[in-house]
Amino acid sequence: MTAETRSYPVTPRNRVKRMHERGSYDRDAGHAILDAAMLCHVAYVIDGQPYATPTLFWRKGDTLYWHGSSASRMLRHLKTGTPACLTVAHLDGLVLARSGFNHSANYRSAMCFGTARLVEDPDEKIEAMRDVVDRFYPERSALLRPITPQEAKATTIIAMPIDEAAAKVRAKGVGDDEEDFALPIWAGIIPVTTVLGTAQTCHRLIDGVEKPETLSIFPAEGRLDTALLAGQRLYEGG
Amino acid sequence: MTAETRSYPVTPRNRVKRMHERGSYDRDAGHAILDAAMLCHVAYVIDGQPYATPTLFWRKGDTLYWHGSSASRMLRHLKTGTPACLTVAHLDGLVLARSGFNHSANYRSAMCFGTARLVEDPDEKIEAMRDVVDRFYPERSALLRPITPQEAKATTIIAMPIDEAAAKVRAKGVGDDEEDFALPIWAGIIPVTTVLGTAQTCHRLIDGVEKPETLSIFPAEGRLDTALLAGQRLYEGG
Repeated sequence: MTAETRSYPVTPRNRVKRMHERGSYDRDAGHAILDAAMLCHVAYVIDGQPYATPTLFWRKGDTLYWHGSSASRMLRHLKTGTPACLTVAHLDGLVLARSGFNHSANYRSAMCFGTARLVEDPDEKIEAMRDVVDRFYPERSALLRPITPQEAKATTIIAMPIDEAAAKVRAKGVGDDEEDFALPIWAGIIPVTTVLGTAQTCHRLIDGVEKPETLSIFPAEGRLDTALLAGQRLYEGG
Repeated sequence: MTAETRSYPVTPRNRVKRMHERGSYDRDAGHAILDAAMLCHVAYVIDGQPYATPTLFWRKGDTLYWHGSSASRMLRHLKTGTPACLTVAHLDGLVLARSGFNHSANYRSAMCFGTARLVEDPDEKIEAMRDVVDRFYPERSALLRPITPQEAKATTIIAMPIDEAAAKVRAKGVGDDEEDFALPIWAGIIPVTTVLGTAQTCHRLIDGVEKPETLSIFPAEGRLDTALLAGQRLYEGG
């Protein structure tokens, strides 16, 4: 693997300006942040107005996918192929310092830039409709009632090859000014994690149907990011 | 309170198009989603390129605030006063249905539209620098080492009155097609919550300093959204 393929190019668009020491253009570092998430925010522009739309997304190689109904304002707009920015952020901790200025948060974020296009090829679209299930729930699409032509028609899938990306991470303790450490002020970190609860079986489930073993990547009290990373590894290996 | 002040106006910009039955323009409903969060994504445009930037934010009445260093690309741009969109999304559950099409997620989201402006008045800026501490950590700014003129100079605060907003919520069980409920396929909800860990005291804390009682709104294993809502109530009451 060459240096070119291990890192995203750095341009004025993705160069980390603020707290640049927290930035990285490494492809694997970016993928790890993306793959630990299910929810992203896509920024797009209509008539000069920016929108930040929250949506589920998934990664396949170096392409990001998201979907929605054809009625979606965002997706109708994106059909023409449009610059977009897909961002993921994980909040990992609250950082309480001895000055207001040094209060902070621990986080992992990735911003990805590219041109979003509509997936129009019918085979590519069906594959993507299976992928969105199997990426999150290993091997699940094979267990489901098949996709109908009406559902395929009512589904819009958007693809965006990542042209540039930047990851930004803060993962450390309190960063007070040296002279402030002597002050009698409590300081510390309050960790934040996103966790899974106990699965709630649909009350209309027919008798004798067990939860598939493949869903064991989502254990009660487990971390969501860990489960999603495990799912992505199975998806990429599959 | 009149109907005008209880709800945000509905325009082509904030009208909920996709799954419109999940949408609401009620002011209190929107505030409850915003106030349960610390992290938002702000969308803005530079030379036609959209950016979705993750950042901490807070609400004071019907104005949203966020901040960063003067070096930030986003904030330098926003100094001119620019249309922006600030979005919050909480992921509450994974919804596994009997068809791929009916897979979904439970969530609470709010998209807010307005014109972002730089806070330039020195008094307003100092007040905002105290607010960002006190909104999250009740009465904490009074305990801290005072803000220095250099810190005030190095801090950029952005304010955006909410002109329009839309909330969108899915909070229910599996929504399968009626005929699919008879299929022998496991379906259900995997709940997702964002929780607090045990506070980690800074290892350089001087002897005898106790954690302030006001931080008890952040109990170990408590929900982040509950803690932040409690903090906002104290901030608005103070």
